[in-house]
Amino acid sequence: MIYADNAATTKMSETAVKTMVSVINDDYGNPSSLYGFGQRAKEVLESARDDIAGIIGADPREIIFTSGGSEADNQAILSAAQLGKKNGKMHIVSSAFEHHAVLHTLDKLKKEGFDITLVDVHENGLVIPTEIEKAIRKDTCLVTIMFANNEIGTIQPIREIGRICRDKKVLFHTDAVQAIGHIPVNVNDDNIDLLSASAHKFHGPKGVGFLYAKKGIKLSSLIAGGAQERGLRAGTENVPGIAAMAAALKEAAPRINETAAYLAKKRDRLIAGLKEIPHCAVNGDEKNRLPSNVNFCFEGIEGESLLLLLDDKGIQASSGSACTSGSLDPSHVLLAIGRVHDVAHGSLRLSIGEDISDEDVEYIISSVKEVVTYLRSFSPIWRDLEAGLKEHIL
Amino acid sequence: MIYADNAATTKMSETAVKTMVSVINDDYGNPSSLYGFGQRAKEVLESARDDIAGIIGADPREIIFTSGGSEADNQAILSAAQLGKKNGKMHIVSSAFEHHAVLHTLDKLKKEGFDITLVDVHENGLVIPTEIEKAIRKDTCLVTIMFANNEIGTIQPIREIGRICRDKKVLFHTDAVQAIGHIPVNVNDDNIDLLSASAHKFHGPKGVGFLYAKKGIKLSSLIAGGAQERGLRAGTENVPGIAAMAAALKEAAPRINETAAYLAKKRDRLIAGLKEIPHCAVNGDEKNRLPSNVNFCFEGIEGESLLLLLDDKGIQASSGSACTSGSLDPSHVLLAIGRVHDVAHGSLRLSIGEDISDEDVEYIISSVKEVVTYLRSFSPIWRDLEAGLKEHIL
Repeated sequence: MIYADNAATTKMSETAVKTMVSVINDDYGNPSSLYGFGQRAKEVLESARDDIAGIIGADPREIIFTSGGSEADNQAILSAAQLGKKNGKMHIVSSAFEHHAVLHTLDKLKKEGFDITLVDVHENGLVIPTEIEKAIRKDTCLVTIMFANNEIGTIQPIREIGRICRDKKVLFHTDAVQAIGHIPVNVNDDNIDLLSASAHKFHGPKGVGFLYAKKGIKLSSLIAGGAQERGLRAGTENVPGIAAMAAALKEAAPRINETAAYLAKKRDRLIAGLKEIPHCAVNGDEKNRLPSNVNFCFEGIEGESLLLLLDDKGIQASSGSACTSGSLDPSHVLLAIGRVHDVAHGSLRLSIGEDISDEDVEYIISSVKEVVTYLRSFSPIWRDLEAGLKEHIL
Repeated sequence: MIYADNAATTKMSETAVKTMVSVINDDYGNPSSLYGFGQRAKEVLESARDDIAGIIGADPREIIFTSGGSEADNQAILSAAQLGKKNGKMHIVSSAFEHHAVLHTLDKLKKEGFDITLVDVHENGLVIPTEIEKAIRKDTCLVTIMFANNEIGTIQPIREIGRICRDKKVLFHTDAVQAIGHIPVNVNDDNIDLLSASAHKFHGPKGVGFLYAKKGIKLSSLIAGGAQERGLRAGTENVPGIAAMAAALKEAAPRINETAAYLAKKRDRLIAGLKEIPHCAVNGDEKNRLPSNVNFCFEGIEGESLLLLLDDKGIQASSGSACTSGSLDPSHVLLAIGRVHDVAHGSLRLSIGEDISDEDVEYIISSVKEVVTYLRSFSPIWRDLEAGLKEHIL
């Protein structure tokens, strides 16, 4: 099996599993309990917070643990909106290819009377900072732009957007779920006010994430109840999961550039190899993207069939976000970068992990070539294209 | 170490840990992914849902997985409130000794214009169904009463309350976090519309729980985003945690009465032994309580000091809820059953687990006696009481 869907979820690292099991068995106390055994769990919790904060350049008090990236996105955006509302600022700037955890939260706010401006992400999958600057109004309370896109992997000019937001005194949130643990992220250097992350995207456990909120930003709680996380997130802390998340991030951080360089080489070979397929296109900028991400559209095929046949060949890939795979609509990300419906349906995302070998890369290339050719051999759209009844777009 | 704080959190069972690690290593795919490996994770998820539903008498489609009991409480109550609001019903009936995940959510709703009636929980820690019946108005949209109290363990007449709510056509939610896995709960027999549960209270993992919502009740999502959990709870499902939760519940369910009977004997011996301490009182009904729960007030002492000295003796106990241990205020539960501030401060909760032996029980009794006597020996309040300057309440 060649698992090439690391953007959907990653395998937990051995160290992370070991950490988790050790906390489960030895430090299972409730960190809110007064006795030594509970306080030991509290220490595990706070040490995880210190580690994570250190890695992203934050203060430990700026980290709130959540059940994942979606919860962090929801809490960050709703908090900023609530603060904005108090000051009569009910305008938010975002982009059309954000994760649904962002877009659907913005939909909620729209119903509450907020005005949302979605800036263009252009054909290369990148927002242009000056366009964000122009979109910011006097009543803008928040700019939310993802660090790296979950489907096409393009890395946004976060630092510049952050600088603009600082200048304009507007809060800046970034969904960094695909970036944390994969490319360097520093909340200070990158001028970030609010950041969401999810452990299972960087070889940590599922069901755990964190929200960074710069000191001074008053968060609202999404889950009310106990006084955990300084009253900002109720519920007994998932100490084993949090410790495992910190372990995974600590493992990734020191060799982040090395891993990225290794993966980028494989990515570039994959892109070069797959480009040999006629009538295809890379989705998103070829270089300014996550080192793990390859995303193509192939004319005249259905992405779903492509995935199933690749699965038969032992390759796990996806057509876009796993979160929306139940839907028949084409990816909102591909539509946002200007792909038409037909073409967007024929998409393939490969998100590779460190375990990939050169042989795997070549096997993927030859398999995709073979499957695309096979699928086109009985595709009515492809037949029309080849017969000149329809024009090739790609 | 005698861990007697199982109401705060429990140790994961070996089976639950084994299940969790096996899913982490072998079925780590994203259940939303189309390929076989993702679908295998989906099967693990759905099989856990089937198991849990079966145990509580629900249909699998009535179970939504959450990050824990607090999230489930929040979502249940906010959903019912939203449905009520649509129909112009903005009154909710609850009790004064609910968990803060319930009470603080009700506080939020109060600010939105909802009217909240808290029924009395009386000296024995029990609500009276007819009082709930009387509290229900034409504009009542929800009754929320916990199954068993987290501090004093009293078990509410849930079935009767449920019947009243059915008759009056009012939704009935119960926070069953302390009940599930410990005493039999059946959503049909008990006439429950909405129920919250948390895995780490029944030897499952932290950071996982579930919400039962009877078919036909339209839940609102608390966390917006991906289409997971039929669009009702966004975020990649914590498959390993969910599988482990199901494993823990499956382990507890077949021997629930046996375990309860075993624990009740130990509980009764603890209560009898501790009652020999002068000027003390059991909090809550002595029999109609969780088989694991012992809760006392001792005059003239500080609960916190009691806990710390018991910890020195290798006994982990608490004064009340772990969720509020950071607070200096006495327990809202003890105040609700009529304890005055001074007395409420001197509380002790022992919540025992199956691993407790008769020797442990006797050791706890003699240790608490010793520590209470010691603390009273230099307590100014106790001196005043003994000198007749103040009157004994207990």
